[in-house]
Amino acid sequence: MGTSIKNLVVLGSTGSIGRQTLDVIRALPQLFRVIALAAGSNVALLQEQAREFKPDYIWYDTPQPVPPNIYGTLLPLEEMAVLSSADCIVIATSGKAGLKATLAAARAGKNIALSNKESLVMAGEIIMAEAKNNGASILPVDSEHSAVWQCLRGETAPARIILTASGGPFKGFSREQLAGVTPEQALNHPSWKMGKKVTIDSATLMNKGLEIIEARWLFDVPVEKIDVVIHPQSIIHSMVEFADGSIKAQLSYPDMRLPIQYALTFPDRLPNPDLQKIDWYTMKDLTFSRPDTARFPCLRLAVDAIKQGGTCPAALCAADETAVEMFLAGQIRFTDIPEILEQVLNEHTPVTKPSLDDILEADTAARKITRRIMANRSNR
Amino acid sequence: MGTSIKNLVVLGSTGSIGRQTLDVIRALPQLFRVIALAAGSNVALLQEQAREFKPDYIWYDTPQPVPPNIYGTLLPLEEMAVLSSADCIVIATSGKAGLKATLAAARAGKNIALSNKESLVMAGEIIMAEAKNNGASILPVDSEHSAVWQCLRGETAPARIILTASGGPFKGFSREQLAGVTPEQALNHPSWKMGKKVTIDSATLMNKGLEIIEARWLFDVPVEKIDVVIHPQSIIHSMVEFADGSIKAQLSYPDMRLPIQYALTFPDRLPNPDLQKIDWYTMKDLTFSRPDTARFPCLRLAVDAIKQGGTCPAALCAADETAVEMFLAGQIRFTDIPEILEQVLNEHTPVTKPSLDDILEADTAARKITRRIMANRSNR
Repeated sequence: MGTSIKNLVVLGSTGSIGRQTLDVIRALPQLFRVIALAAGSNVALLQEQAREFKPDYIWYDTPQPVPPNIYGTLLPLEEMAVLSSADCIVIATSGKAGLKATLAAARAGKNIALSNKESLVMAGEIIMAEAKNNGASILPVDSEHSAVWQCLRGETAPARIILTASGGPFKGFSREQLAGVTPEQALNHPSWKMGKKVTIDSATLMNKGLEIIEARWLFDVPVEKIDVVIHPQSIIHSMVEFADGSIKAQLSYPDMRLPIQYALTFPDRLPNPDLQKIDWYTMKDLTFSRPDTARFPCLRLAVDAIKQGGTCPAALCAADETAVEMFLAGQIRFTDIPEILEQVLNEHTPVTKPSLDDILEADTAARKITRRIMANRSNR
Repeated sequence: MGTSIKNLVVLGSTGSIGRQTLDVIRALPQLFRVIALAAGSNVALLQEQAREFKPDYIWYDTPQPVPPNIYGTLLPLEEMAVLSSADCIVIATSGKAGLKATLAAARAGKNIALSNKESLVMAGEIIMAEAKNNGASILPVDSEHSAVWQCLRGETAPARIILTASGGPFKGFSREQLAGVTPEQALNHPSWKMGKKVTIDSATLMNKGLEIIEARWLFDVPVEKIDVVIHPQSIIHSMVEFADGSIKAQLSYPDMRLPIQYALTFPDRLPNPDLQKIDWYTMKDLTFSRPDTARFPCLRLAVDAIKQGGTCPAALCAADETAVEMFLAGQIRFTDIPEILEQVLNEHTPVTKPSLDDILEADTAARKITRRIMANRSNR
């Protein structure tokens, strides 16, 4: 492995993936230097992180004055993403906040450790083309895409990608039970500790739908060759089938620090005492089943959106972000989410071969449509 | 992939792996030409195969005259193994018959698709050194070692190898039940159709012990870093753990044609309609447990033998071949096998850093000791 220290920019450092990224850096301090940290509104935690990691630059989103004694100079996300001294940009912001930074980093030919799903879902074609044209590498941080990436290492082209899904907390629920689900129940994921948005998306299976779209762009595989299988134990993080029918799988206990570390240390693999090794002698049974798209229509909606292409995935993504916020605020039922999304997709006028502006417009329009539909529903 | 036809030598063509090798060649006829076929005593089948594949050379072991109209010129195994026109030597003979051919092919710098376990168990250090010095490649054909080889493709060094074992037909048996096991019961393997010797070895777990020794040489990993886990479904064919704790596994339905084809087409992977793809939506539960070395001591004996090193694995291997023959002939009980092997290992005087002659002498001596022990037992 290389002996030189990697300079890291961490966007979204106070979120779930951002905090775990800093955990990995703490475990391998001789390998990394944090040169920039960006947060949303959690300025207190950012301040703590800045004191510990002493970055050159920081950013936060709320209109507060810079706290006294905080380390680092203010620098906007998109400028952080292209810092010439940066070896790798970790994009761990959630929602569309990461999209512009991802695109900037791709254009600057950077190594991008990408945890932000929305970037690729909304603008996968543009980002992958910019990355290719400018020599940037997109290093997936999602556990599923990291698994696929690891399985493809040194391999021939994939014949099929099999994304595993825990199935979320409501796997066995009837439609009636699903209608009564509370935000508290939905936030209680059986195998992963994650941010709120992605936890709700896991419960609706929208998360897996978005991952299909991500995989389609990351690995240049048509959506018809991407399957989803329910695997509640979250031990097999995903699989790749090759032309001869041989399948490779990547396994570990569920712990996001592993895919984060893999992206940061690639192509090396390094011991980290914080990462627990699998004990096969106490391993529970691994089970597999077909996802039920009748009870969890979000999965089907995502496949429909990417098949339609153009701005459809961006519209779906924006509508989902809005709908999840409304569910968390107690304004709609759990089962309203896919119904609203389907309606938004039906009303959306897709633009094919969209520019970034088309995509951002589709985002804004879809949010508006979502709010209108929701208002109509509550007036019913 | 390369468009040139690969010339294959198939040693042991009438055995289980040999016949399946020819199945793979039948499925991909544009890729291969069989230039030599060698069998043991099944001359009728060899004749049939020779008519179909039209090899330049044939060999068989029984003192019969060459049948009329048989294709090919007689040529001994060790000369077949070094044919200058051969691109790959498939060594699918069982027992020690393959050892000299393997060594000859290694010295000739050939690609060796190796299914013969005994070669590496008896003389792993010598064969791997000869292969390295002469630019030969040992391409494992065993499903477990093929899985490890596939998992290591493009990867960093293995931190741990996890060999899976079906556990054989007697997994849940008590010691008393094991003592009463018949050859017919032992030959009825739950997941693999194989030759008799390897099927009995699977039932005693000696097969897995021999595979630990093979893995030790093939992948240059100390035996302490090779684990065995019972996985009765035989879907995960083995796994590799890396420095970061990430595990890669190779999976398929149990079908030896897949590892055979992988070795023959490497580094390419090619579609073969005969190879059934896994259907994850009907997949049974995958289970894992610790092997019981109290009831199945052969596994422990093999680990002891490789830890002692020198000629010990060769002695164990020879003793096992003899003991299995006696069990199949109804001369000893199933549970006598490990007891006899342990006694042979205790009586064996190991030679360290053995030459091939030392190894062959250890083989002969161990067979003698085995027969004597067995004669004493029946006189008791």
